[in-house]
Amino acid sequence: MSAYVALEQRLKRLSDLGGAAAVLNWDQAAVMPKGGNTARGEQLAALGGIAHEILTATQTAELIEQARAEPLDAWQAANLRLIEERYTRATALPQDLVEARARATNTCEMAWRQARADSDYPSLRPHLEEVLRLTREAAMLEGEKLGLEPYAALLDQFQPGLDEPTIDRLFQPLQDQLPALIENRLATQPTAEKPKGPFPKAKQKALAQELMAEIGFDFDHGRLDESTHPFCGGTPTDIRITTRYDENETVSALMGVLHETGHALYEAGLPETWRGQPVGTSHGMAIHESQSLIIEMQACRSPAFLRYLSGRLAETFGDQPAFAAENLIDLYTHVEKGLIRVDADELTYPLHIVLRYRLEKALVKGDLDLHDLPAAWDDGMQELLGIQPETDREGCLQDIHWPVGAFGYFPNYTLGGLLAAQLFQAAERQLPDLLARIETGDFTPLREWLRANIHEKASSLPMQSLIEEATGAELGTEAFLAHVAGRYGPR
Amino acid sequence: MSAYVALEQRLKRLSDLGGAAAVLNWDQAAVMPKGGNTARGEQLAALGGIAHEILTATQTAELIEQARAEPLDAWQAANLRLIEERYTRATALPQDLVEARARATNTCEMAWRQARADSDYPSLRPHLEEVLRLTREAAMLEGEKLGLEPYAALLDQFQPGLDEPTIDRLFQPLQDQLPALIENRLATQPTAEKPKGPFPKAKQKALAQELMAEIGFDFDHGRLDESTHPFCGGTPTDIRITTRYDENETVSALMGVLHETGHALYEAGLPETWRGQPVGTSHGMAIHESQSLIIEMQACRSPAFLRYLSGRLAETFGDQPAFAAENLIDLYTHVEKGLIRVDADELTYPLHIVLRYRLEKALVKGDLDLHDLPAAWDDGMQELLGIQPETDREGCLQDIHWPVGAFGYFPNYTLGGLLAAQLFQAAERQLPDLLARIETGDFTPLREWLRANIHEKASSLPMQSLIEEATGAELGTEAFLAHVAGRYGPR
Repeated sequence: MSAYVALEQRLKRLSDLGGAAAVLNWDQAAVMPKGGNTARGEQLAALGGIAHEILTATQTAELIEQARAEPLDAWQAANLRLIEERYTRATALPQDLVEARARATNTCEMAWRQARADSDYPSLRPHLEEVLRLTREAAMLEGEKLGLEPYAALLDQFQPGLDEPTIDRLFQPLQDQLPALIENRLATQPTAEKPKGPFPKAKQKALAQELMAEIGFDFDHGRLDESTHPFCGGTPTDIRITTRYDENETVSALMGVLHETGHALYEAGLPETWRGQPVGTSHGMAIHESQSLIIEMQACRSPAFLRYLSGRLAETFGDQPAFAAENLIDLYTHVEKGLIRVDADELTYPLHIVLRYRLEKALVKGDLDLHDLPAAWDDGMQELLGIQPETDREGCLQDIHWPVGAFGYFPNYTLGGLLAAQLFQAAERQLPDLLARIETGDFTPLREWLRANIHEKASSLPMQSLIEEATGAELGTEAFLAHVAGRYGPR
Repeated sequence: MSAYVALEQRLKRLSDLGGAAAVLNWDQAAVMPKGGNTARGEQLAALGGIAHEILTATQTAELIEQARAEPLDAWQAANLRLIEERYTRATALPQDLVEARARATNTCEMAWRQARADSDYPSLRPHLEEVLRLTREAAMLEGEKLGLEPYAALLDQFQPGLDEPTIDRLFQPLQDQLPALIENRLATQPTAEKPKGPFPKAKQKALAQELMAEIGFDFDHGRLDESTHPFCGGTPTDIRITTRYDENETVSALMGVLHETGHALYEAGLPETWRGQPVGTSHGMAIHESQSLIIEMQACRSPAFLRYLSGRLAETFGDQPAFAAENLIDLYTHVEKGLIRVDADELTYPLHIVLRYRLEKALVKGDLDLHDLPAAWDDGMQELLGIQPETDREGCLQDIHWPVGAFGYFPNYTLGGLLAAQLFQAAERQLPDLLARIETGDFTPLREWLRANIHEKASSLPMQSLIEEATGAELGTEAFLAHVAGRYGPR
């Protein structure tokens, strides 16, 4: 057996362990009785510990070294590079730093839950200080091994190939142009009527499942369940989407399910031949988010789909004026300056991300002290959106990302939005009847285009090549700005 | 760190892997979409393979060797013995035999599903031949290392401490005395009326959950779900019981849930201090079955509980004559000579087991050829129960155990039944109001007695000592025969 093949077997085992952990995580969120929490934590820690041992074993390094001298095709070579990068990251940090960081993020997450409930930033600050300190230390060590600046090392772990200059280039036009678009929309947007409930949970679920299936979700290879925080988990042949239902509201929950369905299509569309290998997994968080947002924002909030949805809602819940297509279009494109990122609309959302990007970059580089975070947050909100939180709960305490050490994650949300627009524009160029088909509830052309251009390529190409091959251009803001100008601009 | 403590850590990791596998197994049976089957098989194989590697590593042997010289208390010493036994079993077999057996049982199980459907024993025979051959080979190798005859090595793996002389001594009085009891019951038993459905699934489930909670199942540490084959799985702090519902029938499904609840109480009652260690796990299949049967057969089919259940059924489904206590008592103690073990009543069940014990012993010892199995089965049924199957589907093809290589398992069902009766008799001696409390739906005294006398002792004692400490006598048939004479004998 060649060293490369032995390495593939080793990675397959890591993938199986990861798949087991994914099911255990779904179980914990969706069905586990609360008393199972301690044992579940121990099971997941054992799986993580074993995976780390397998990855960092000296045999892994020896096999990588030997495989480099073997003849490999392009995918194998890409796979080997990805394996090597995983190995490099996993061995870059001393064990005591890994453990200290795990403890610190655990403690900080608990402190954050309490601090957010109490809107008490000072109680969080020392814990966040420790997480930030350990994150910087880890980013420095990993960055040294990978030839990256610390913040770049953080960005790269969530989206390989992503760097600060790219983000700066892309975010500048957004912060320049979105504020005027927002003001214009606020001044001119029609009032939309909210649908009146109750919307029985069973009917909401049935409709969600039907729409998921129409978009292309295969219920022989996945499920829809409930959890407090909706997510898409599981493994490519057994995808677990969760949502939560509010019997007084069905509009936003439904879009949430369709968003997760976009993530699911990506996972399901990854190449079968490369299952279990790094090159066969999804590319990174920006690409992943582009797949959920192309389904949610480009396809499902389009007038075409909302005209289709109008009939489906009326069939499911009985007709009412708020289900009229024109009203749904107004409702699903309603813009509002708000303080909370997760409630933000498509137009204001990027500015929430710009703020977080500025702040986390400054924190990681040591240009901003955590004592000054609340004030910097409030100033940034004022500058970007013209509003200010009255409490830190609605300000710098709202997100879990930093307390759990996920610095470098936020930009992916907006990069995903930009890419979704650029991909949809490219798909429309190649498939002129794309929206006409979506208006009949037929997602086949879009799904097949995404499968061929994104899903099946998995991690075989660098991010920029993947995007250029799919859209003919490097990632830019033009498609997104054209999209929002069309959807929210003067009619 | 002492070698013993290092060994405990190693076993804790194995336990965490086992716990992860238990949740994955539950998921597969209860909620997994069918398309997840291949990936799930790979995940479980990876967990099993890793556990085997950890257990059989030379470091395990070294730590066992060193720990033997360290000062240990009684539980630690028992734990060390159990660890050593696991190590011995795991290293007794060459890897190619382990793999050949896994392949053979897999193939044979599939062949059995088809053969049973077609009632076609000849199509199964060659596969069963291979499984039997590999089982005998493995039993011989393990037996050599453990100082046991091959069939004893098989018995011991399911119930440590169980041997052939014990079973012979216990089964003889059953085959001598049960036939007359059966004939008498058949001649004298009252006719019982079957409750008329439909029994809506949601109501069946609600009642089952209420009764489970009353018996002592803690829904903060467990769930009730559905699967084709009901079971009790999960881990001690997160117990997963499954059942299946038939809207035309509620009586037998309900007893099934109460049976699994008995298994669950055992797992939940294991000592917290020893969680994750062999000495802290359940003792073996005979002891485990005694815990389900003491709840189902001794407590829940007693006239006392059925009087209580009568009211609960009427409350849940609306009253009807069949829910009268006297009718329920007749219904739940109805005796019938049948061909199918899993449908058998308390009185005829042991004879089904006696037959299987005789046959599997002869098969493992080479005294019976698989060509002659169907005829031997039919002759045995004739001798023991006076009936004969018309097809092998109702005969030697009915059970999955042998096709999957579980020779040596069957006796535990009946030994569990004997022990349940003996434990209940002992509990009643010590707690004179035991049945009076059960008649009010109060299982606290029984549960606490079982916890103190069985659950909390886990695997710290040899089987016979555990039974003697709990009941004051070695395992016998007297309590069981007295119990069935009382329940089914002339009134």
